[in-house]
Amino acid sequence: MYRPEIKVIDCTIRDGGLINEHRFEDKFVKAVYRAASLAGVDYVELGYQLSKKQYSPDKFGRSKFCDDDFLREMTADVPGGAKVATMVDIGRVELDEIKPKQDSAVDLMRVACYVKDIDKAIAYVKHLTDKGYETTVNIMAISTALQPDLEEGLAQLAECPVKAVYVVDSYGALFSEQIHFLVNLYKKYLQPKGIEVGIHAHNNQQLGFANTIEAIRKGANYLDGTIYGIGRGPGNCPLELLLAFLKNPKFNLDPVLEVIEKEFLPLREKMEWGYIIPYMLTGIMNQHPRSAIALRAGKDKDKFAQFYRSLINDAEYS
Amino acid sequence: MYRPEIKVIDCTIRDGGLINEHRFEDKFVKAVYRAASLAGVDYVELGYQLSKKQYSPDKFGRSKFCDDDFLREMTADVPGGAKVATMVDIGRVELDEIKPKQDSAVDLMRVACYVKDIDKAIAYVKHLTDKGYETTVNIMAISTALQPDLEEGLAQLAECPVKAVYVVDSYGALFSEQIHFLVNLYKKYLQPKGIEVGIHAHNNQQLGFANTIEAIRKGANYLDGTIYGIGRGPGNCPLELLLAFLKNPKFNLDPVLEVIEKEFLPLREKMEWGYIIPYMLTGIMNQHPRSAIALRAGKDKDKFAQFYRSLINDAEYS
Repeated sequence: MYRPEIKVIDCTIRDGGLINEHRFEDKFVKAVYRAASLAGVDYVELGYQLSKKQYSPDKFGRSKFCDDDFLREMTADVPGGAKVATMVDIGRVELDEIKPKQDSAVDLMRVACYVKDIDKAIAYVKHLTDKGYETTVNIMAISTALQPDLEEGLAQLAECPVKAVYVVDSYGALFSEQIHFLVNLYKKYLQPKGIEVGIHAHNNQQLGFANTIEAIRKGANYLDGTIYGIGRGPGNCPLELLLAFLKNPKFNLDPVLEVIEKEFLPLREKMEWGYIIPYMLTGIMNQHPRSAIALRAGKDKDKFAQFYRSLINDAEYS
Repeated sequence: MYRPEIKVIDCTIRDGGLINEHRFEDKFVKAVYRAASLAGVDYVELGYQLSKKQYSPDKFGRSKFCDDDFLREMTADVPGGAKVATMVDIGRVELDEIKPKQDSAVDLMRVACYVKDIDKAIAYVKHLTDKGYETTVNIMAISTALQPDLEEGLAQLAECPVKAVYVVDSYGALFSEQIHFLVNLYKKYLQPKGIEVGIHAHNNQQLGFANTIEAIRKGANYLDGTIYGIGRGPGNCPLELLLAFLKNPKFNLDPVLEVIEKEFLPLREKMEWGYIIPYMLTGIMNQHPRSAIALRAGKDKDKFAQFYRSLINDAEYS
């Protein structure tokens, strides 16, 4: 029997926007929100809540800021559509600028942090909960976290009013046994307090979908995916695979197939994501993809063997 | 500690050749054999053993027939390279034409069959073993096999002189729990007789690598992969991911990265394989990909939603 507690979060616009400074056309954002909503997705993450004091709207698209007028415009065509999520980065937002929930189009604020910033994330969660929002905490780069630090953070998170805490495999480095270990570790602290575990899996090693399934098997109920796997570099767990796997009859694959056909195939001609060897290599090395991003922007973009050597040589210092 | 019993079989030429009637240039075949050998791969499968009485050399490339002169030519540049494997399809070979091992360049003959043909496969195994070859039996379309039939077949295979019997997920339909179940079932019959379990995973749902890992976790020791995941439609478990995962220090990623860079990137411009929605759909429907192959050859190749509807509608008969 399927688990009705499972929530699917589409991160297409937020995570995919990392490729193009969030300069998607409004038409595309609307098509994604529509498709995900009709597919039965629970939340659609439409971008970041960044402070315009720190980031210029001249340089970034509308979904980098997620003003209310933007969100209402993007969602207006689909009455009763998916709830709206946005991501909040520690230190990149002015909390005082965030309106109370009753005046906002956002339902869920997702606080992204590293293990070392969990204290700050908890302060954000309390602030945002007081304003009426649902919240999650997304612990990034979990494949590099030291276990005692992580356990201390999870123990603190267990005492705060958060809906879910995420295993975020930012580097696409984890294998199923590590996913099992981490989900179980999260559950040990969070489950007694009724807090859910989430999974956000990158696809460097073609394990984004597989690791999401493994997290489900161990009890994760907040599941992230993106349409056609879009995302910076290797991208994410493809939403269409996830929806086809889930048994809840509320999910419907057709709208996602339609939007892939109409919007994502042409976009993929102009923008790169997917199984790309340099990102596979940063994944197996458990590294941030910044070196692969730099490589792909230059003339040596296809010098895979040389790039691998440089990763190995750069790793040699003590 | 790594398992020294693990054998890696590169199927690039044999499985990838299904895309182009095995019309690879000799230069390409040599580059693949060289890269896989230098990478520490145990066997390189260079094609099929098809009877020229049944299949015309005018229509198919050299690796469809694997004459000895072809095999010796392809492997000559790499003394002490990987062992050579070929695939034998039930009913498409003239067994009498196969020379004894001491006169042949082939080390391993892999007999491919469906569950219903296991009796024939056993006859082939006996014949080929008598001629001095190592053999495996690769049970195809395992996701559609009925359990009593499969168990009867495994019980018979346990009594024959085969090195390994494969779980072949021809349709790319299996999930980790099913892989666990099947590998355990195979082991129950085969392990007491010292026969190994193999895994050949297709990538329709981006689970080729993940399912290979899951098979390893449960004890499979014969592992198939192809360079850059090449193979008809979605392709296979990518060899480079598998080699990066395995802990045995004999494996070396660099030659595979080099050959991807030099040979596979240009080839991929001319030939299609990988994550392609119609093959993802036949995978989730647990079907042979023939309908997807037909679709991709025609003008409606990107009509994903319509194709999915046709699969669902065609499935409706009683």
